Amino acid sequence: MCAVGPILPAVCFVWQIAMIILFGIFIRYNEESDTHWIEHKTSNNISSNIENDFYFRYPSFQDVHVMIFVGFGFLMTFLKRYSFGAVGFNFLIAGFGLQWALLMQGWFHSLDPMDGKIKIGVESMINADFCVASCLIAYGAVLGKVSPVQLMVMTLFGVTLYAVEEYIILSLIHARDAGGSMVIHTFGAYYGLSISWMLYRPNLDQSKHRIGSVYHSDVFAMIGTLFLWMFWPSFNSAISDHGDGQHRAAINTYLSLAATVLTSIAISSLSQKTGKLDMVHIQNATLAGGVAVGTAAEFMLMPYGSLIVGFCCGIISTLGYIYITPFMEKYLKIHDTCGIHNLHAMPGVIGGIVGAITAAAASKDVYGTEGLANTFDFMGKWKDMMPTQQGGHQAAGLCVALCFGIGGGIIVGESGVPIRLCVCVFS
Amino acid sequence: MCAVGPILPAVCFVWQIAMIILFGIFIRYNEESDTHWIEHKTSNNISSNIENDFYFRYPSFQDVHVMIFVGFGFLMTFLKRYSFGAVGFNFLIAGFGLQWALLMQGWFHSLDPMDGKIKIGVESMINADFCVASCLIAYGAVLGKVSPVQLMVMTLFGVTLYAVEEYIILSLIHARDAGGSMVIHTFGAYYGLSISWMLYRPNLDQSKHRIGSVYHSDVFAMIGTLFLWMFWPSFNSAISDHGDGQHRAAINTYLSLAATVLTSIAISSLSQKTGKLDMVHIQNATLAGGVAVGTAAEFMLMPYGSLIVGFCCGIISTLGYIYITPFMEKYLKIHDTCGIHNLHAMPGVIGGIVGAITAAAASKDVYGTEGLANTFDFMGKWKDMMPTQQGGHQAAGLCVALCFGIGGGIIVGESGVPIRLCVCVFS
Amino acid sequence: MCAVGPILPAVCFVWQIAMIILFGIFIRYNEESDTHWIEHKTSNNISSNIENDFYFRYPSFQDVHVMIFVGFGFLMTFLKRYSFGAVGFNFLIAGFGLQWALLMQGWFHSLDPMDGKIKIGVESMINADFCVASCLIAYGAVLGKVSPVQLMVMTLFGVTLYAVEEYIILSLIHARDAGGSMVIHTFGAYYGLSISWMLYRPNLDQSKHRIGSVYHSDVFAMIGTLFLWMFWPSFNSAISDHGDGQHRAAINTYLSLAATVLTSIAISSLSQKTGKLDMVHIQNATLAGGVAVGTAAEFMLMPYGSLIVGFCCGIISTLGYIYITPFMEKYLKIHDTCGIHNLHAMPGVIGGIVGAITAAAASKDVYGTEGLANTFDFMGKWKDMMPTQQGGHQAAGLCVALCFGIGGGIIVGESGVPIRLCVCVFS
Repeated sequence: MCAVGPILPAVCFVWQIAMIILFGIFIRYNEESDTHWIEHKTSNNISSNIENDFYFRYPSFQDVHVMIFVGFGFLMTFLKRYSFGAVGFNFLIAGFGLQWALLMQGWFHSLDPMDGKIKIGVESMINADFCVASCLIAYGAVLGKVSPVQLMVMTLFGVTLYAVEEYIILSLIHARDAGGSMVIHTFGAYYGLSISWMLYRPNLDQSKHRIGSVYHSDVFAMIGTLFLWMFWPSFNSAISDHGDGQHRAAINTYLSLAATVLTSIAISSLSQKTGKLDMVHIQNATLAGGVAVGTAAEFMLMPYGSLIVGFCCGIISTLGYIYITPFMEKYLKIHDTCGIHNLHAMPGVIGGIVGAITAAAASKDVYGTEGLANTFDFMGKWKDMMPTQQGGHQAAGLCVALCFGIGGGIIVGESGVPIRLCVCVFS
Repeated sequence: MCAVGPILPAVCFVWQIAMIILFGIFIRYNEESDTHWIEHKTSNNISSNIENDFYFRYPSFQDVHVMIFVGFGFLMTFLKRYSFGAVGFNFLIAGFGLQWALLMQGWFHSLDPMDGKIKIGVESMINADFCVASCLIAYGAVLGKVSPVQLMVMTLFGVTLYAVEEYIILSLIHARDAGGSMVIHTFGAYYGLSISWMLYRPNLDQSKHRIGSVYHSDVFAMIGTLFLWMFWPSFNSAISDHGDGQHRAAINTYLSLAATVLTSIAISSLSQKTGKLDMVHIQNATLAGGVAVGTAAEFMLMPYGSLIVGFCCGIISTLGYIYITPFMEKYLKIHDTCGIHNLHAMPGVIGGIVGAITAAAASKDVYGTEGLANTFDFMGKWKDMMPTQQGGHQAAGLCVALCFGIGGGIIVGESGVPIRLCVCVFS
Repeated sequence: MCAVGPILPAVCFVWQIAMIILFGIFIRYNEESDTHWIEHKTSNNISSNIENDFYFRYPSFQDVHVMIFVGFGFLMTFLKRYSFGAVGFNFLIAGFGLQWALLMQGWFHSLDPMDGKIKIGVESMINADFCVASCLIAYGAVLGKVSPVQLMVMTLFGVTLYAVEEYIILSLIHARDAGGSMVIHTFGAYYGLSISWMLYRPNLDQSKHRIGSVYHSDVFAMIGTLFLWMFWPSFNSAISDHGDGQHRAAINTYLSLAATVLTSIAISSLSQKTGKLDMVHIQNATLAGGVAVGTAAEFMLMPYGSLIVGFCCGIISTLGYIYITPFMEKYLKIHDTCGIHNLHAMPGVIGGIVGAITAAAASKDVYGTEGLANTFDFMGKWKDMMPTQQGGHQAAGLCVALCFGIGGGIIVGESGVPIRLCVCVFS
C-alpha cells in the first residue's frame, strides 16, 4: 500500500460531512418506518404487522447484507499479501457507497412529490446494497492495483452511473431485472474491466510473483464463496413481488447454482493434468449460475430451465478462467485480478439474454392472464404490452447496461486527474 | 488427492444432464410458487402474503442452508492437508445431492396425482437440504479416504436410501421426527460408518502422521461448529407445524445445546492431564445436544427435559471421542475420521429413544385434546392412535433407520465395483 | 492456559445440575410455545400464524445469536496464542450465561403470578442473548488474563447484576433502551474494566511480547467484526415494538454504522506515518456507531441524526485506541486487552446521552399523539409522562448502568476468594 498521506482522511471526512448535510436536507423515514404509521394502522381493524413490508423484506435484506460484506469481502482475500486490505477496502467502499446510493437511487425512485423529500425504508436499504454490489464487482478487476482514494472515486461515479442506468432500464424501458443480471452484474463488471483497461501498465508483468495465494488465504476466500452461494436465492428474490414471485425466484436460483457446481468442477478437473481441482475455479465459477439466472429468476423459467442455465454457465465461466482471462491480459491489455469477466460479465450478459428470451416466450397458457400482468408488471401505461415486446425491452435494457458499463468505465478510468493519484501494491 | 483422470468430469456431466432430463419430465413449481397463485389469492379478500408458507419457512431454510454448506463444510476443515478439499467436496456432494433429493423425495411426498408431476416449493428445498445432511454426515466417516467419484456414488445411493427410509418412517409407520434424530442422524451416521468398515485397510496405521490438524485449521473448523450450533434451533424447527410446534422446537434445541457445551467442556478438561481443553471435543461434542433433542424437539419435552438431554449427550459424546473411537478403530476395524459415531450415531439413537419415551408419556393433561392431536398428527387414518402406541411407532422408526443405515452402508461399501475406484490421500 | 485441575469440570457439573433443578422448578413454555395455544388459536377465525410473535422475532433472534457466538467469539481471536481459547471460552460463557439469564431475567420480567412459573418464549431467548452480550463485553477487558473458572464466576455475577439493573432501568425508572447502549454496553464495559483494574498486576509489562496478533489471526478477527457490523440493525431492533419501531431502529443503525466506517478509517490513516490502516481500528472502531445509536434507534432520530452519531463515534473510538487505552494502562493501571473502553464504554455512554436528548426533544409535531405514546410507552401508570421528563429518566437510567457496572466490577474483582484462583496466560 502506498503512502497516501492525508488524502484518504480528507476525502473520508469531507464526503461524510457532505452526506450528513445532504441527508439532512433530503432523507426522511418512509410511511412504514415513521411513528405516524401507528395512526394509519389503528384505523384498520386488521392485524397491523402483516401489512408492514418490513417483515417480508428484512430477512432477505440481512442475507443480501451478508453477501455484500462477508461474501464479496472474503471472496477477495485470496491474495496472500492482501487479505486484510481486500476485506478492509471492501468495507470502506460499501460503507460510503450505500449512503451515496440511498441519495442517488432515492432521487429517481422514492422522491415524495408532496414535500420534496426522499423517503427510505427497508426496500431502499436492499437497493442500496444492490448498488454497492455493482461497485464491489468492479473492484474485483482492479484489486491490488489502485489506492483507497481511487476506489472511493470509482465508487462515487459507479453509484451515480448505476442509479441512472437502473432508472433508464427499469422505469423508462420497463425491463424486469429481479436479480440484476443486467443492472448489477453486466454494468458492474464492464465498468471495472474498462477502468482496469485504462489503468493498464506494462510493468505489471514484473510483479507477477506478488500476485498469488497461499493455502490459508484460499480457505478464507471459500468463506466468501459459500456465503455468496448460499444467500444468492435471497439476492435474486429480495425485491421481487411478494408471494409467488419471490418464491419462484428463490427456487430457480437454488437450482441453477446447484447445477453450476457440478459443471464447473467437471471442467476444472479436466483442465488439470492430475485431475485435481483448481481452487480459483471452485471459488468463483461455482457462482456463475446465480448471476445468469438473475433476470429470469422471477419468470416461469421452470426448474429444468434453471438447471440448463446453471449447467451452461458453469462450463463457460470455468473455461473463461482457463482461456479468456490470459487472452485478455496478453492481447487486450486488460488485467482482471479476480476474473470478474468470467464470474459477472459473461454470466450477466447470458442472464440478460435468457431473460429476454423467457419474457418473449411468455404466454397466457403458462402464466395465466393475471399472472402474466403481475409477473411482468403490465399495468398502468404498460397495460397493453405483449410478451414479445417485453422481450425487446429486455434486450434494450441489456444494451443500456453494457453502454453504461463500458462507457462509464472508460471515462472514469481515462480522466486521470482524479483517479491516478497513485498506483500501488503491484507496482 | 489421487489422479482420477477423466472419470470425475464424466460422472459430473452425465449425472447433471440426467438431472436436467428428469427435472424436465417430472418437476414443476407448486401452487404457491406458480404464477397462477395470484388468481387464487385475489379470490380471497384476506391479505395474501400471510397465507404464503414461503414467508414462514424461508428464514429457516436459509439457516439450514448455511448449516449444510458452511457448517458441515468448515467442520471438516480441521485436517491440515485437506481443509480445502473438505470444503470443496462437501460443496460437490451437496450440489449434486440436493437435485437428486428433490426428485427422490418428490416421488414419495409431493407427486401430484392429477398430472404425475412433482411440485416443489420452499418446503421441498428444506427437505432436500435435510437429505443432503445425512450424506454429509456419512462423508465425515470416510473423509480423506475416498475419491470424489466414490463420494458421488455414496451420495447417489445415500439419497435414494434416505428417501425410502424417510417415507417408511414418517408416512408408513407414522413416527414423528422434526429434527431428524432418526431419519437424518442415525441413518446417515451408520451408513457412513458401515462404508468405512467395508473400506478398512490395515496400512492406514502407517499414514497416521498425515491425519492431524494445525492451529489455524482448528480455528477454521470452529467456524463450522459455531454455525451448526447457532442455527440448530432452525434445523429442528424448520418443518414443524406452524405456530407452537416450531416455537417449542426452537426453545428446546436452544436449551439442550447450551447444556451440552458445559458438560462436554467438563469431560474434555477432565480427560487432559493439564486441564486444558481438547479442540476436537469443543468442535464436535458441543453439538451432540442438538442431535439428541431432534425427535422430541416439537413435543412437550419441557425446558428442564431439554437440559437433561443436553447434559447427558455432552458427557456421552465426549467420552465417545476419548474411548469409543480408538476402540472401534483397533478392534472393530472401523476408522471414523471425524468421529461421527460420537456426534451423530449415539446422540441420534438417544434422540430416537427420548422421542419414543416422550411420545409414550404424552397425556391430554399436558397437551390438551387438540394439542395432542395436533402435535402427533393424530388425524385421518391415525385419529384413534394413543400416545403409548405412538411411542411404539417411534421405536419402530428408530429400528428402520438403523437397518437402512447399517444394511445400506454394507451393501454400498462392499459392492466394490462402483466405489473402489481408488483409495486416496491417506494411502 | 494454567492447570486448573478438576476445578473447571466440577464447576461445570455442579452449575449445570443446579440449572436443571431450577429449570425444573421454575421454567415453563409461554402461551405461544405451549400446545394449548392451538385451542386459543382455533377460537379465533383470523389466520393463526400472524398472531404468533415467533415469526416476527425469530429471524432477529438468529441474527443476534450469530453476533453473540461468531461475532464476539471471532472478534477476540486476534491474539496469536489465544485464537482458539478466545472462541472456546466465549462459547463456555455464553452457554452457561444464557441459562442463568433465562432464570434471572425471568424472575423479574416473565413470572406468571397465577402459578409462580417463569414462562419463556422467543423474546426470552433474545433477552438472554442480550444479557450474555454484556458479560462477553466484560470478557474483552480481561481476555488472556483470567482462568475459565474466573470467567464463569464473572459471568454468574454479571448476569445477576444485569438482570437487576435492567429491571431498575427499564421497569422502575421507565427508561427506553432498544439496543441496550446503557443496559448492555455501558454496564458490561465498566463491569469488565473494573474487574481488570482490580486484577492489575505490574509484571504484565514483562509479558507484552505474548500479546500480539499475526496476519491470519487478524483476518479471523475480521469475521467477527463483519458479523457484528452486519447484524447490528437486528440487535438494535430485536425487541422494539412491532411495526414502525423495529423498522426505524434497523434504518438508524444501518446508517450510523456506515458513517462510522468512514471516520474510523480516516482517523486510523491519519494516525499512522505511512497512511496505512491499523487493523485494530478497522476491527473495532467501525462498530462504535452501532453501540452509540442503541438507545435512540427506535426514536425519531432522523437519518441525518444517525449519521452524525456514527460520524462522531468513529472519531472518538479510534482516538480512544490511539490515546486513551495506553493512558489507562500507564496511569490508571487498567489493562484493557480488546479496548472495550473505546468500543463499548464511551460509545455506550454517548448512546445514553443521545437517547436522553432525543427523548427530551420529542414533540407531538414530530411523533404524532399516538406515535409519541407508542414510541415511549406512555401508557398505564406512565400515561401522563412528558418527553422532557422522559429525558430525565433516560439520564437516570444511564447513571444506574454506570453505578452497577463500576460498583459491581469492583466488588466482584476485589473479592479475591472466588475469582483469584489463578492468573494465567500472560503471567
